[in-house]
Amino acid sequence: MQNFVFENPTRIVFGKGQIARIGQEAARFGKRALLVYGMGSVKRSGVYDKVTSSLTEAGVAFVDFPGVRSNPVLSHVLEGIALAKREGVEMILAVGGGSVIDTAKTIAVGVLDDGDVWDFFLYKRQIRGALPVLTVVTVSASASEMNAAAVITKEEGKQKYSIRSPFIYPRVSILDPTALFTLDRSYSAYSAVDAITHMLEGYFNNAEPSSPLQDRLVEGLIKTIMEATEVILREPENYNARAEMMWAATLAFNGLTTAGLGPVQLPVHMIEHSLSALYDVPHGAGLSMLLPGWMTYVIETKKGRLARLGREVFGLRGGDEEADARGAVDAFRSWFRDVNSPSSLTEGGIPGGDLSSIASHASKLAVVWGLKDYTQEAIAEVLRLSL
Amino acid sequence: MQNFVFENPTRIVFGKGQIARIGQEAARFGKRALLVYGMGSVKRSGVYDKVTSSLTEAGVAFVDFPGVRSNPVLSHVLEGIALAKREGVEMILAVGGGSVIDTAKTIAVGVLDDGDVWDFFLYKRQIRGALPVLTVVTVSASASEMNAAAVITKEEGKQKYSIRSPFIYPRVSILDPTALFTLDRSYSAYSAVDAITHMLEGYFNNAEPSSPLQDRLVEGLIKTIMEATEVILREPENYNARAEMMWAATLAFNGLTTAGLGPVQLPVHMIEHSLSALYDVPHGAGLSMLLPGWMTYVIETKKGRLARLGREVFGLRGGDEEADARGAVDAFRSWFRDVNSPSSLTEGGIPGGDLSSIASHASKLAVVWGLKDYTQEAIAEVLRLSL
Repeated sequence: MQNFVFENPTRIVFGKGQIARIGQEAARFGKRALLVYGMGSVKRSGVYDKVTSSLTEAGVAFVDFPGVRSNPVLSHVLEGIALAKREGVEMILAVGGGSVIDTAKTIAVGVLDDGDVWDFFLYKRQIRGALPVLTVVTVSASASEMNAAAVITKEEGKQKYSIRSPFIYPRVSILDPTALFTLDRSYSAYSAVDAITHMLEGYFNNAEPSSPLQDRLVEGLIKTIMEATEVILREPENYNARAEMMWAATLAFNGLTTAGLGPVQLPVHMIEHSLSALYDVPHGAGLSMLLPGWMTYVIETKKGRLARLGREVFGLRGGDEEADARGAVDAFRSWFRDVNSPSSLTEGGIPGGDLSSIASHASKLAVVWGLKDYTQEAIAEVLRLSL
Repeated sequence: MQNFVFENPTRIVFGKGQIARIGQEAARFGKRALLVYGMGSVKRSGVYDKVTSSLTEAGVAFVDFPGVRSNPVLSHVLEGIALAKREGVEMILAVGGGSVIDTAKTIAVGVLDDGDVWDFFLYKRQIRGALPVLTVVTVSASASEMNAAAVITKEEGKQKYSIRSPFIYPRVSILDPTALFTLDRSYSAYSAVDAITHMLEGYFNNAEPSSPLQDRLVEGLIKTIMEATEVILREPENYNARAEMMWAATLAFNGLTTAGLGPVQLPVHMIEHSLSALYDVPHGAGLSMLLPGWMTYVIETKKGRLARLGREVFGLRGGDEEADARGAVDAFRSWFRDVNSPSSLTEGGIPGGDLSSIASHASKLAVVWGLKDYTQEAIAEVLRLSL
């Protein structure tokens, strides 16, 4: 186990009926909030009404800032920063999933800064503060509700980059599984893929010896997410399945599953960031297009890990390591198909002729992320194996 | 899954060489600390020197308060409160295991209060504040380094009671697995028993339906602790085994394994509190004397849970539920014997003739803890099954 620091101050308020508590939680941070949300699904689902009634009852005024799309963009964030400054809000309240929360986090940083907020994404300057961020979660996948990261795309150059700072841990996140009841089948599946991939990147990290504790934690969460997702696709309003998925997705990427693994590389996420920057595919869908191909790419160097994963998660008992490692790749591909998440670039509608331009785009991100083994050629090979 | 609030602000600094960071961490909270420790093992192991050098280098003065014994007592805590008030310290720094940390937490509460600190243990008054508590861990078992609880014994009446308050979460805990290298075989085993029992009490909680996520988390941590302990008993300086045990014991009782289970009852801990209050046995040893007997006591009502536990942790495949449930009890008893932790009251040297006085003592605690099913007769039956 490598040395680590674990600190996660987010207060999680979890369960049925808990959205009504957002007002009293918000009132601890001030009297005026920027209310960030997406394209209106929170209005259709009734979550928006629950949130705003609770705020009003607690005496917290709010300014609406809707319009966040998946793969949220910098220009929209900048509008949010300007609005938040103009309105003198004291906190940023995200009502949505990862895209909305990441937008809120970046606004929270930008409000307290007079420079170009994109500097922080290029690691040119260090984040020195942020307004309090609170969240009411309506899509469980990113774990952004309990972590210190945010991902934003700058339209010019299609740069999908990220920030990380202790200042942007949400102070409070409300996780009410009933808010997921209206999440459609596709996004329910993509959410599962996203949460699983977050953990697998750490699981395949180079740190040796591996930690049995972390291995079991990850394997248990992956099994839980898969089981819950299968139930959710049949019964979208199954409370326990939504609850298991909601908490598992949060634990999957809140620092717990990577504690002690050393610096974790995220090559699949990195390549997907290029994919969704260039084609605007949903993040989870992009990940499932790439994961089996990436596993095939690393099969020789990570055979033991892949075999263990296949045995623990899918119960494979093929006999030798080679068979179970290949079996694990096949099992993931087949599970993605089962839940209707594309298991290859072809299934995802990404043109085969574009591989070199995707690879070129991702190789720039590899430099920023310090993934030096991921040259343009290496990325092109992963993409080819993902066709 | 039941509704829950999860919030754990403790900063964990984990790994080899990290004790040297205590000075810089402490300096964030002031210039003057009360240094709480036990009977001198931290001096013999060299941990004391590492801590005090680091404090001095960071400009943090300290006042020694040694002498904490296992099953720490109120009279000693009161001396600590008086000393801390007299010396005007700004923080309490515990260097030790659960007994030392619990003493430090109670002192931290008492310093800011003018009344009788025992009131808080009797739930007569609510804790309204505490000095910052920091810890350097040298025994991993209680998870007190990352939770909001403390247990103290009042000598008069031998009352072993507890407090719980968000104010007593340690602000920073330093977990350096090398500090466990000198922990002897007995306490290494007792620590494992304690951490395992913390989780089993939640695992057997009445909340239904059970949460697959929590079940897997608990089963994975128990397996990890058992495996690591077996290695530790052979190789006390095996870094990875000490590290796995250290982090697993913290996660076992920091709120994570019980999130969503509803209010968790701790009957085995409760009866053990009477045992160690009356006989001053080590807490872990007391727990292993009681756990197999308690499991036998609940075998009819918790057969499914016991069978699952036997299958997941010990790989039992006896066929039917009854067989695997009984197999689980036997497997725990036999594992306790393997690690030389007493698996019955008889093995622990508790006189069989004392059962009714232990039961009478514990039944008073049952009232305070709200365990209404644990009448004196019920407790006596658990004790009889533990002979």
